[in-house]
Amino acid sequence: MTTRRLIADFVLPMDGSAELIAGGAVDIDRDGRIVAVGPEAELAPFDGTTDRIGGLLMPGLVNAHAHTPMTLLRSAGDGLPLQAWLQDVAWPREGRLTAEDVGAGMALGSAEMLLAGVTTSCEMYFQDDAMVDAVRSTGGRLVMTPGVLSFMCPNGDPGPRIAELTAVHAAHHDPAGRVTVGFAPHSIYDLTPQQVAAVAAQARALDTFVHMHLEETETERRLIIEKNGATATQLLADHGVLEGRLLAAHGVWLSDEDRSILGAADVAVAHCPASNLKLGSGIAAVTAMQAEGITVALGTDGPASNDSLNLWEAVKLAPLLARGANHDPSLIPAASALDMATRRAGEAVGLGNVGRLAPGTWADVVRIDLDHPGFVPGLEEDLLTNLVFAAGASAVTDVWVAGERVVTDRTLVRVDLDELVADARARGRRLAA
Amino acid sequence: MTTRRLIADFVLPMDGSAELIAGGAVDIDRDGRIVAVGPEAELAPFDGTTDRIGGLLMPGLVNAHAHTPMTLLRSAGDGLPLQAWLQDVAWPREGRLTAEDVGAGMALGSAEMLLAGVTTSCEMYFQDDAMVDAVRSTGGRLVMTPGVLSFMCPNGDPGPRIAELTAVHAAHHDPAGRVTVGFAPHSIYDLTPQQVAAVAAQARALDTFVHMHLEETETERRLIIEKNGATATQLLADHGVLEGRLLAAHGVWLSDEDRSILGAADVAVAHCPASNLKLGSGIAAVTAMQAEGITVALGTDGPASNDSLNLWEAVKLAPLLARGANHDPSLIPAASALDMATRRAGEAVGLGNVGRLAPGTWADVVRIDLDHPGFVPGLEEDLLTNLVFAAGASAVTDVWVAGERVVTDRTLVRVDLDELVADARARGRRLAA
Repeated sequence: MTTRRLIADFVLPMDGSAELIAGGAVDIDRDGRIVAVGPEAELAPFDGTTDRIGGLLMPGLVNAHAHTPMTLLRSAGDGLPLQAWLQDVAWPREGRLTAEDVGAGMALGSAEMLLAGVTTSCEMYFQDDAMVDAVRSTGGRLVMTPGVLSFMCPNGDPGPRIAELTAVHAAHHDPAGRVTVGFAPHSIYDLTPQQVAAVAAQARALDTFVHMHLEETETERRLIIEKNGATATQLLADHGVLEGRLLAAHGVWLSDEDRSILGAADVAVAHCPASNLKLGSGIAAVTAMQAEGITVALGTDGPASNDSLNLWEAVKLAPLLARGANHDPSLIPAASALDMATRRAGEAVGLGNVGRLAPGTWADVVRIDLDHPGFVPGLEEDLLTNLVFAAGASAVTDVWVAGERVVTDRTLVRVDLDELVADARARGRRLAA
Repeated sequence: MTTRRLIADFVLPMDGSAELIAGGAVDIDRDGRIVAVGPEAELAPFDGTTDRIGGLLMPGLVNAHAHTPMTLLRSAGDGLPLQAWLQDVAWPREGRLTAEDVGAGMALGSAEMLLAGVTTSCEMYFQDDAMVDAVRSTGGRLVMTPGVLSFMCPNGDPGPRIAELTAVHAAHHDPAGRVTVGFAPHSIYDLTPQQVAAVAAQARALDTFVHMHLEETETERRLIIEKNGATATQLLADHGVLEGRLLAAHGVWLSDEDRSILGAADVAVAHCPASNLKLGSGIAAVTAMQAEGITVALGTDGPASNDSLNLWEAVKLAPLLARGANHDPSLIPAASALDMATRRAGEAVGLGNVGRLAPGTWADVVRIDLDHPGFVPGLEEDLLTNLVFAAGASAVTDVWVAGERVVTDRTLVRVDLDELVADARARGRRLAA
């Protein structure tokens, strides 16, 4: 039953098209789910709470690949190649992280994302309880995918860690709430194909998805082929990992054959353009992946390798890179770029009920200020291009998650940003000392 | 004589290094020039007006290549290749622009730039009086480079247009004020080498610089070579254009030999990464240009082909692209990226006294909020990386031009942003109708 109605100048449902509904409204029930979306004049009569909020309402963005607590390591080791950066900077500091540190880093990053209109993030990290508590404190939505690394496998046995992941799933996976759980075997360069397959088998048994790194760097590709005589993708196929749902981050160095294999399975790739460029990894062939039927979503990656959590930068970068690298300005129009950060990203992280505004989906909604200078002249035919290329995060004013307003007029409702900054700063400086 | 002192947590002078001065201060005289920069404790005693403003003070950014009044055409024709976009979208609408339209578009864009900490822009456009009035209204600094296009040359004679440019120079060029004037022959694909040479000769006679488009697209390069049997750069050299100062926008398709020729002359290239990508033009080889001694500055290009005037996006994109395209994460560290948008850009647009904070330079100063989440953890060694990759325009709070505060706490002092938006919007919609 509708309990609230938001009424805007435009509603952009992103429900399989880029249709704009002028004078649109979104009806929300008491559980935070959407009841109806359409022109105000065509919705059922309603005498409850209405909010003529104006602007443009669209689904909250979904960050499909993040390690958000790395806010505490932001910008550390800039200029190093990936392996040196992981081994000399990231992992030593991460080894000293307490649960409280992870919570503080996650809370700050969640706050940054909400202020930018990113309502969901898919996190490959650890300290699950602290992660969940942090996102509960801000009001965001979390897809927690606890990591599996080789050092967690005594004598190479992933069993104990799989048991821990199973417990995390039992404790926190709640499709009726704001937290769901997937499993994150780190990569084929850190784990064996057999270890990844064991994690994936348990993910399938629990009907959840696998989240891993795949083909991020040329070095990684070469080493995997040298060691195994096959590409990472071929190994995943050979070991049954592609029988379940897979979210693969990066995909920069996939071959044509790899893409063909992935496209025939239930695979999404989280394209993280800023991170791939900053670390010198390269430019992923997004349109070639899409042509093979791979779902391409967008991610920021961790804030130590981007160094921002502003997913709108990826929304602009994805079309810019596809166009620049292929010398074709018609590639990835604005609507497609938005699709990769909303509906496609929701699908990629196992949530078909976020990233679009439709009856039955969560009321994860973002309001865009159409008086922002980026919307000049703001012809209706150019509105999405304005949004993607000229406005982005700076035009986000209000955010709802499951119908709860968590950002009002650019200010967080539940938490104090300055306090989160001060806490995370003190912890990050101690880690670096 | 010092009349005001700004005192900050850090001062980043960008005066030939990336030195950060902790507890730094900037002394400003009554004409708006800087008297001294250094640690507060080491500056001469002073009992005038002091402002303990905190944060980080740095030079205002310089946008080295813009057609800012195209705010009125923002996002129009997205997806078209450059020549089709120019001929079918941009030029027809621009042909209907009145002086008042140009002024309204420029005022809005100038306001957008000031709010982002971009204090100077080098504009290739027309309706010079309206341009100057618009920037005077906001308080920004303008390098006006009136355009010369083939249609302005009756029977191929650039003489009448050169006379107009000379009059613009006489009327507005004022190195002691906020407006200077250069000359902008559009390109070697629109003008003949002889026409460009005639414009350049008059620029040299007036001791100013030439601003033109160069090697933006592969098609342009091919057509010029087919028509002339030489590259645009070779033609510029052969016709004496490189005897004076040249600011060349884009440089995407320069060959090794072209870069060598330009590096031996007094040439700056305005790298416009977002526009080059969006139009499918390609990725300029910035580090190869720098290796040849070419000064590389950053520009946004016009807001119809970017579509933002936020130069901080280019400050992040330049290192991202150089690293991603060359698979080398050590390229263009944050300090170098900032240099390209400050001191180097000042030099590129003929202003050695902007883009750096030093005795005798203009007090064009930007305050950065170090409490922004992008500065977590904010180790001093990572502060510039934080600024470039995680904070950018969203951390700009206050802006001074020639010592005058034109943005206070994220609000324009002289003009009302909402009024500028409304005026430009009405005019842009009329143009499209």
